[in-house]
Amino acid sequence: MAKKVPYRLYLSEEQMPRQWYNLRADMKEQPEPMLNPATLEPVKEEDLYPVFCEELAKQEMDATTRYIDIPGEVLEFYRMFRPSPLIRAYNLEKALDTPARIYFKFEGNNTSGSHKLNSAAAQAYYAKKQGLAGLTTETGAGQWGTALAEACAFFKLPLIVYMVKCSYEQKPFRRSVIQTFGAEIIPSPSTTTKAGRAILEKDPDTGGSLGCAISEAVEKAVTTEGYRYVLGSVLNQVLLHQSVIGLEAKTALEMLDEYPDIIVGCAGGGSNLGGLIAPFMQDKLLGKASPRIIAVEPASCPSLTRGRYAYDFCDTGQITPLAKMYTLGCGFVPAPNHAGGLRYHGMAPILSKLYHDGYMEAMAVEQTKVFEAAVFFAKHETILPAPESAHAIYGAIAEALKCKESGEAKTILFGLSGTGFFDMTAYESFLNGTMTDYIPTDEDLEKGFAQLPKVPAFK
Amino acid sequence: MAKKVPYRLYLSEEQMPRQWYNLRADMKEQPEPMLNPATLEPVKEEDLYPVFCEELAKQEMDATTRYIDIPGEVLEFYRMFRPSPLIRAYNLEKALDTPARIYFKFEGNNTSGSHKLNSAAAQAYYAKKQGLAGLTTETGAGQWGTALAEACAFFKLPLIVYMVKCSYEQKPFRRSVIQTFGAEIIPSPSTTTKAGRAILEKDPDTGGSLGCAISEAVEKAVTTEGYRYVLGSVLNQVLLHQSVIGLEAKTALEMLDEYPDIIVGCAGGGSNLGGLIAPFMQDKLLGKASPRIIAVEPASCPSLTRGRYAYDFCDTGQITPLAKMYTLGCGFVPAPNHAGGLRYHGMAPILSKLYHDGYMEAMAVEQTKVFEAAVFFAKHETILPAPESAHAIYGAIAEALKCKESGEAKTILFGLSGTGFFDMTAYESFLNGTMTDYIPTDEDLEKGFAQLPKVPAFK
Repeated sequence: MAKKVPYRLYLSEEQMPRQWYNLRADMKEQPEPMLNPATLEPVKEEDLYPVFCEELAKQEMDATTRYIDIPGEVLEFYRMFRPSPLIRAYNLEKALDTPARIYFKFEGNNTSGSHKLNSAAAQAYYAKKQGLAGLTTETGAGQWGTALAEACAFFKLPLIVYMVKCSYEQKPFRRSVIQTFGAEIIPSPSTTTKAGRAILEKDPDTGGSLGCAISEAVEKAVTTEGYRYVLGSVLNQVLLHQSVIGLEAKTALEMLDEYPDIIVGCAGGGSNLGGLIAPFMQDKLLGKASPRIIAVEPASCPSLTRGRYAYDFCDTGQITPLAKMYTLGCGFVPAPNHAGGLRYHGMAPILSKLYHDGYMEAMAVEQTKVFEAAVFFAKHETILPAPESAHAIYGAIAEALKCKESGEAKTILFGLSGTGFFDMTAYESFLNGTMTDYIPTDEDLEKGFAQLPKVPAFK
Repeated sequence: MAKKVPYRLYLSEEQMPRQWYNLRADMKEQPEPMLNPATLEPVKEEDLYPVFCEELAKQEMDATTRYIDIPGEVLEFYRMFRPSPLIRAYNLEKALDTPARIYFKFEGNNTSGSHKLNSAAAQAYYAKKQGLAGLTTETGAGQWGTALAEACAFFKLPLIVYMVKCSYEQKPFRRSVIQTFGAEIIPSPSTTTKAGRAILEKDPDTGGSLGCAISEAVEKAVTTEGYRYVLGSVLNQVLLHQSVIGLEAKTALEMLDEYPDIIVGCAGGGSNLGGLIAPFMQDKLLGKASPRIIAVEPASCPSLTRGRYAYDFCDTGQITPLAKMYTLGCGFVPAPNHAGGLRYHGMAPILSKLYHDGYMEAMAVEQTKVFEAAVFFAKHETILPAPESAHAIYGAIAEALKCKESGEAKTILFGLSGTGFFDMTAYESFLNGTMTDYIPTDEDLEKGFAQLPKVPAFK
């Protein structure tokens, strides 16, 4: 029986997690190792040092330490914007007339507008601690770039952001926020890297892709003295840092004597979803509970629902190690009409493995349906969601309506990973009816799959 | 001696105020009454019924009821975005190397991006309760329009927003947010009203002003069946609703055994400042405490520091009642290079009276200095402030630096009324060095004063 539930529950500072949770420590089967594309040998921690700072390389490879202390300086940074609220969506429930109890963990109340700041803080801190000269990264929709710019400004670390060109052009204000925090922004593909020049040569008018921006940022990092590269999603280290979302949510739900029957998150590279579900997935792995866990992805970039579970490059330029993941092929670029983020060709290896092993479900949704859910949610809960996050709203509403049908009072938890203030162009096109959907054909996907690297079955 | 202070303190739902505080009940001398401009007789409650809904007209005139219950439905609405955090600016303190303890009450964590939602919720609720057909309002920088659109969407009430034309054009995304919540937006001056047409005739290329948008919205309300007008600042009722800011802040500070020596707020029409200071000003009026209270206004629209304390129209079109207030003349329009809000020609009559009677100080700041403070604050506290709010940051920093000088560990509270996500054009012009300052000359101001209505000394 649930306790009286406030609209918004904030943990106290004392209740905030002091350790990240490393999901891999409880996975019976580990994700396959990253491979060096030249030798097809598993990547070792030291191999990552030229790209990542050492502590992060260590976290990337660590599959056994269950809990990792959050450094004091990162905790202090977190306290400027965390804990994030666990919100009971009373008004959404009422509007849907559902017996379900709907909760959402809202990560949008910070200047980056999303959960990305959780990992940015950690990555900037470790880089500074190692005495690096600066960092490079890529950003698509812009949340990650903003988050990292905030963290780098705070820790006084130079930052170069490769921003996917179409976002750079469509989101001038997002760009300005990043610049306000003092970072340098380069639209990608650019002429500042070999990878960028190669892509521009093939297609001078390309709007860019996340995979391409990653190639550029990695190349820039490894060719600039004292620089390293950081990434806002996909990686094991990122999912580790994002576990604060789920840890906070679980503590808050426990205070309310609640446990979710269903957990819904949007899925692009997997950072928000992986963070939200982490401690609940632990329960599932350890047989303590069996919540349904649902990843919602865009129908225009359906890596889980229509991708292949295969080794692939993490970037378009094919300079990163190979990761075994659900992928549409590293050359896959979502249609230009696709709004917001969630445009990565692959999915975090940890989540890919868990999905492959049946611990998670996935669904793909067309973007007009996503925006319909977003506007409905905004009108009833007053929060304007990011298009990315609205995928989770769509999934949560779908489950709540099933509860209405069946009369079951299930507890639904979803992740509202961010706000949509920089996505108004997309909202406009939805409101004026010009937004269109795009679903790749099987033939489209086959082209991407045909380019997957040939990797002999690893063992 | 102060207790251990968390970075961010949230009250529980139970601790949230259930009553608004009406500052007038404790003022020894009342603000002068509003006057009917035709008769110069004091306005009576019933006179306001054609413009405001009845409950709000009552609140507007009520100078004696100290505490007014917040209706249950409004409390429920508040719970979707309140309580707002009281934040200890540890990192700003460190960056300034000041012994001062700096707190700020942050009202920006909602989709309107500001404190405006506090009054919007109340005004939309009362209008709905009276069975009105719809509402009209004006918006300048856009926070108020967004807030009211959110509240009207929630209470299912049609809304027409007159948006100052230069904001309408400079802030397309702000516009889209308002439209997402279902409101109709008309750039002002427009041809939909007599007032608008008259202004357009004189100056077809005008970018509009808040005073002009008010004229249009009032006219539209009184000429449309079942419609009423609502205003986001200046009025007594608005300051009443905004008292939740100060009430929450005071409770939170009490939990920390703190009391502010200095309270700083930005001042445009006065809604944020009036709300923030309300319970502290009560202490001051009752002789219980004597905090310094500082209003910070833009040097380009300096109603308190350089205006006249005189009867004036609340709008450019001269259709509203006359209010005694600090004013630059209802025809005053800030220079086009002035960014953000705080562009109203007058100041809330309650605050004007308190300032006139010596309970408050005021200072005016040039906008480049304001943006310098904004960027400094963003880098150290990770929050990107609205240009309006950054005036308060500037004032708080100035006081904190005086503490550094004197070695005094004063407690400073300032209001961070909102976020700057929709003000990136202004940030850009600051960052690239094209932002300029404008300070009206005495001659400029004399032109405005010359047009003040001739009102014989009342009483």
